[in-house]
Amino acid sequence: MTASLWTVTDEQLDPRRQHHFETVFTIGNGYLSTRGAFEEGYPEDRRATFIHGVFDDAPIVFTELANAPDWLPLLVMLDGEPVRLDSVTLHAYHRSLDLRNGVLTRTADVETPGGRRAAITWRRFASLADQHLLALRVEVVPAFDGEVEIRAGLHGAMTNRDAVVDNAHWKWVSQCQGGGLTVLRARTRTTKIEWVGAMRLDTPAGTVLTHDLWDAPNAPTERLCLAARAGQPIVVDKFVGVATSRDGHDPVALAEQHARAVAGWEAALAASTAAWESEWAVTDVEIEGDAEAQISLRFNLFQMLIAAPRHDEQVNIGAKTLSGFGYRGHCFWDTEIFMLPLFTYTAPHIARNLLNYRYHRLDAARRKAQANGFEGAQFPWESADTGEEVTPGWVPHFADRNKLIRIWPGDIEIHITADIAFAVHQYWSVTGDDKWFIDRGAELLLDTAKFWGSRAEWDAASGKYHIRDVIGPDEYHDHVDNNAFTNRMAQWNLQTALEVLAWLKVHAPDRAAALVTALDLTPTRLERWRDVIAHIFLHIEPNGLIEQFEGYFERQDVDLAAFEPRTKSMQEILGIEACAETQIIKQPDVLQLQFLLRDHYTEDQIRANYDYYNARTDHTYGSSLGPAMQAIIACWMGYPEDAYEHFMRAARADLRDVRGNAGDGIHAASAAGTWQSVVFGFAGLRVHPNGDVSTKPHLPHHWQRIKFKIFHRGKLETIEVHA
Amino acid sequence: MTASLWTVTDEQLDPRRQHHFETVFTIGNGYLSTRGAFEEGYPEDRRATFIHGVFDDAPIVFTELANAPDWLPLLVMLDGEPVRLDSVTLHAYHRSLDLRNGVLTRTADVETPGGRRAAITWRRFASLADQHLLALRVEVVPAFDGEVEIRAGLHGAMTNRDAVVDNAHWKWVSQCQGGGLTVLRARTRTTKIEWVGAMRLDTPAGTVLTHDLWDAPNAPTERLCLAARAGQPIVVDKFVGVATSRDGHDPVALAEQHARAVAGWEAALAASTAAWESEWAVTDVEIEGDAEAQISLRFNLFQMLIAAPRHDEQVNIGAKTLSGFGYRGHCFWDTEIFMLPLFTYTAPHIARNLLNYRYHRLDAARRKAQANGFEGAQFPWESADTGEEVTPGWVPHFADRNKLIRIWPGDIEIHITADIAFAVHQYWSVTGDDKWFIDRGAELLLDTAKFWGSRAEWDAASGKYHIRDVIGPDEYHDHVDNNAFTNRMAQWNLQTALEVLAWLKVHAPDRAAALVTALDLTPTRLERWRDVIAHIFLHIEPNGLIEQFEGYFERQDVDLAAFEPRTKSMQEILGIEACAETQIIKQPDVLQLQFLLRDHYTEDQIRANYDYYNARTDHTYGSSLGPAMQAIIACWMGYPEDAYEHFMRAARADLRDVRGNAGDGIHAASAAGTWQSVVFGFAGLRVHPNGDVSTKPHLPHHWQRIKFKIFHRGKLETIEVHA
Repeated sequence: MTASLWTVTDEQLDPRRQHHFETVFTIGNGYLSTRGAFEEGYPEDRRATFIHGVFDDAPIVFTELANAPDWLPLLVMLDGEPVRLDSVTLHAYHRSLDLRNGVLTRTADVETPGGRRAAITWRRFASLADQHLLALRVEVVPAFDGEVEIRAGLHGAMTNRDAVVDNAHWKWVSQCQGGGLTVLRARTRTTKIEWVGAMRLDTPAGTVLTHDLWDAPNAPTERLCLAARAGQPIVVDKFVGVATSRDGHDPVALAEQHARAVAGWEAALAASTAAWESEWAVTDVEIEGDAEAQISLRFNLFQMLIAAPRHDEQVNIGAKTLSGFGYRGHCFWDTEIFMLPLFTYTAPHIARNLLNYRYHRLDAARRKAQANGFEGAQFPWESADTGEEVTPGWVPHFADRNKLIRIWPGDIEIHITADIAFAVHQYWSVTGDDKWFIDRGAELLLDTAKFWGSRAEWDAASGKYHIRDVIGPDEYHDHVDNNAFTNRMAQWNLQTALEVLAWLKVHAPDRAAALVTALDLTPTRLERWRDVIAHIFLHIEPNGLIEQFEGYFERQDVDLAAFEPRTKSMQEILGIEACAETQIIKQPDVLQLQFLLRDHYTEDQIRANYDYYNARTDHTYGSSLGPAMQAIIACWMGYPEDAYEHFMRAARADLRDVRGNAGDGIHAASAAGTWQSVVFGFAGLRVHPNGDVSTKPHLPHHWQRIKFKIFHRGKLETIEVHA
Repeated sequence: MTASLWTVTDEQLDPRRQHHFETVFTIGNGYLSTRGAFEEGYPEDRRATFIHGVFDDAPIVFTELANAPDWLPLLVMLDGEPVRLDSVTLHAYHRSLDLRNGVLTRTADVETPGGRRAAITWRRFASLADQHLLALRVEVVPAFDGEVEIRAGLHGAMTNRDAVVDNAHWKWVSQCQGGGLTVLRARTRTTKIEWVGAMRLDTPAGTVLTHDLWDAPNAPTERLCLAARAGQPIVVDKFVGVATSRDGHDPVALAEQHARAVAGWEAALAASTAAWESEWAVTDVEIEGDAEAQISLRFNLFQMLIAAPRHDEQVNIGAKTLSGFGYRGHCFWDTEIFMLPLFTYTAPHIARNLLNYRYHRLDAARRKAQANGFEGAQFPWESADTGEEVTPGWVPHFADRNKLIRIWPGDIEIHITADIAFAVHQYWSVTGDDKWFIDRGAELLLDTAKFWGSRAEWDAASGKYHIRDVIGPDEYHDHVDNNAFTNRMAQWNLQTALEVLAWLKVHAPDRAAALVTALDLTPTRLERWRDVIAHIFLHIEPNGLIEQFEGYFERQDVDLAAFEPRTKSMQEILGIEACAETQIIKQPDVLQLQFLLRDHYTEDQIRANYDYYNARTDHTYGSSLGPAMQAIIACWMGYPEDAYEHFMRAARADLRDVRGNAGDGIHAASAAGTWQSVVFGFAGLRVHPNGDVSTKPHLPHHWQRIKFKIFHRGKLETIEVHA
């Protein structure tokens, strides 16, 4: 285990890549994350700290994670000259993120315009051992005799980038100093969530000449003046306790307590590192023979681990984790289908928190179903704090300011309801957590089935149940009828609900009876479910080829290869309407279905679909969700080199900024999907209905070995496959 | 001339009226205005400084005046305890605005929780002699021996209130200190307008113990510690030079220069007071016999004088002046029809600036006409920096977040184009400014006529020209055909254009020829204009009663008296659609027309309309533009007591917060309209086509005398009427 396989580095300061690297160098601890902006700031930086659940209202998108007051500010002054990297000479520069313990380190050998030179190292981490603790250390080795000044503060006036203007969510509440702490309080405008930061400065090395407070409004700043002696290190530690009113009645006391409790940098770091070691002991995946794949995968796992809520079942992981402004912190099916398997297999307590988030929002899902004229629970396509639909219904037209573009997924991308049921069932199957399933999971499964029972419409002409006017996983085609993924997953949801109810009646008869009453699961209703299961519309050719939606095969067949090389999505090249008239798809849709319900298909049936849809998928610039899944099916079909190409496209998405938008935040589904690629694809892991675990390696030619761990029915098992 | 008739006071601190009094105590100088928020802040205050022309993009409303970085911050500390009025005991409190010189004074006798007592007076003004200079003086008379600390700063992180979240327009650029000044620079996000504030602190009285700078990010704050001796006054002056990149290439130098140039408080105040005396010498209106009317009118005139641009012909006065967030700084017909007469008669240079604002936006008006399929110049209903239409096309529905409400005035409230032409002609008639008219005014008049010539449609069935699908001044009825105000003003615009062209051909033949070529004023076009003039649709009953729009008389006739007493508008009571089906109108529409074109109507013709429409107008909660106009017609009809009621409703609108929304800013049209009420109504001033000036007093019974001045064709004339 060499350090280089655990380290992400940046060797050169390139302002054009600033926002990309802010995302890459995000640190966090499952409670909050902070982007890798510089402590002292940099022109046009997008500095941000996002805290799970701290949403505030915003126009058009309804709500967004409010960029929290900034805990980072720390400015080094050399004989009165500020060290900002855009205004000093950089003799050396280096950044690295140690994935083993989440410490971000920046070193710079700087020289001010006035000729003061120093080697400076900044380190920061969000403690994984204490989620309310943030730590920042600066070490200055001056090359001169004189004075080093450190200005460290909290900055309340943070804003969120929006299309036209920035959104200002925070109102100053108060600030004070006492007991060695500087405390700032702020409150979100509409949701009235209070944020508290308690800052403490320690000086493990150096001679403090003066130490005072600038009690400036909304920007309290402590100022340390230290004696500089050439070659003698000065070290200042900044600890910030952070809490919000979501954490309890007295966030001030909480923040102060965590800032005070820390014994010092080494102790805090040791505790956090130990927590990281425990996590990695389970989560790490070793890939032998491919350093880039190894480090990329670890980077993706790290991003998932810092985004995963460990102590909160009222929050979810947004499509961009807590690492950027993209998608405003809203969560999608990305959580259940792409991220949850990772947690279900390696950190079931986290998986359970995420599923509980949905459980606690059943009432909102019921209201959505009812508002649409349906029964049961219909989950929102985008979800945030309340569980109401927060997909924007429309966005302003980019060219004509009086026009609007209607956004449809919040109305008709309904497969998410089955996706959540699927994740519930997968969690139960893999963990064997009967108690949770009886208490909560079963209700999710049954009430989502109830939705599908009401959503499917009988069509007398075809003698089938239809689900019309939907968007499937492939978003290049909207307003389609009978999307195979949606229909088959609805069928699965209904079938599984019947089985679950039968199981409950045996293993938890009281709970079964209570749910039958509460959800009105009458024999008539169950009969209807059976009828839908038996007669739902699915177009499957004799060889097993599934039509993605009704009429898909009649759309224009386009040779994708003719457009290569390209740097844009096919939708951008052809236009939205024209693209929808073709068979080009944004991401695997039928294959995604066959991946989820693998036990229901033969290899030949999957191959018929792989051969057909692989050629019609916009792998490069379609959905970022696609490549990790495509890699799995390619493995199964015996094309590990093709799989590797898809896998690396996913694995590099953010590290290499493959799509040019990594600055908006981590592609979470892609990141977690790479774990699935390795485990279910390259290693060929299968957990069979009878409980057996098997592997079937399909390693790329240069991979020698894969090793990882999974929890299966409570037992940690180590899986190792070789070439 | 007693001081009490020049002073607006607030005797009691009432947090519920905070936003109202912030508006009332707005100070300014025609370059910027600052709301009357406290220097040290107060919970939920809406502190704001708006600078003419400093717009930045905003969602839905396109653009808004960006609440500028705050120059006010000044906190008094008594032996370390902050004086914030929500956390000290108030033994006495008083605020007053001296309308004679624009100085806002606040006095408070405070006692801190720790028992430190002091009498404190804060004074502030925006210099009318130097528009880049702001001044603030605090005088502290401690009742204890100890220390008084003054923290004075500039605060960059200001935001604009919006419906859902606050808009953050400002990006920090830099800050520095030197030469006795603390300088902060910021820049708007989209329009990239740079703002610079240069702060200077003087200490005319008191012993300074220490003086240092808190160089906190975006909130640089100077801190003065002074020795406190019981009974001995401490005086600190804060001067802030303000400039923006709209003012020249080097706003830093400009701001610094103005902060440095000031000799001291007394000198700066003397210069500003002298400038105010010059203005009042012309603008003041004396009303003998009615203290409230006197002070209210002076307050309204003051508000107009601090909003009027004296050195900038690229800005206009928004519907809420520079005193609040309402209407985002956008300007409407309010300027031309309600405000301009005041300036045309008392400050022609200001009127000319405002008309030049329109002249410079002729190209944008031409583009608007062209985009709508018309010719000539169609001015936007709401206008801001570029002269493009900035009326929101839609706003989110208040109840259903996925629905939108279409806002129509930007599309069809087209009478503004004739209103601007009218103001151009009025300015020319009253001032005799032939040079400006030849250079600029004529083009405005001709190109607006060209619009009407293309906008009127020939209707073969009626043998008339129709102007269909419009909103007239009465906004309770939209999408109406042949609104009388619109049609008659269009006719006037066309007729006046023909006359102007004839005049030009005699007095400026080269310019006439140039305009004929540039605007394509072919004989065919002029023939068409004559045809429209001759045959435009107008429904006038034999007695002179004009139908407000086609079909108005068939709408339901409702007895307004039956709804009294009420506290809401009739539109709120009946609902938008139901109200539109009645004859209830929001404001005088036909009467407004007869006021503007008075020479074209006999008294009997006006009376027929007065009797009809007066009974059908929502005077109390309809448009705030109505009462001042209604007062004029009531005077003409010989009902001065009725007129007085309307007049006082307008005059008190903001001082007494009659409509409950004064916190959003001054009702500018109403404020300027009260001057018209007095001059054209109560005094009955008329400037006849032959140039004669006459008066015909209609004084309320308790008024003894009115005295005011007007410029007429360059000569200042004093008008005095007696009961």
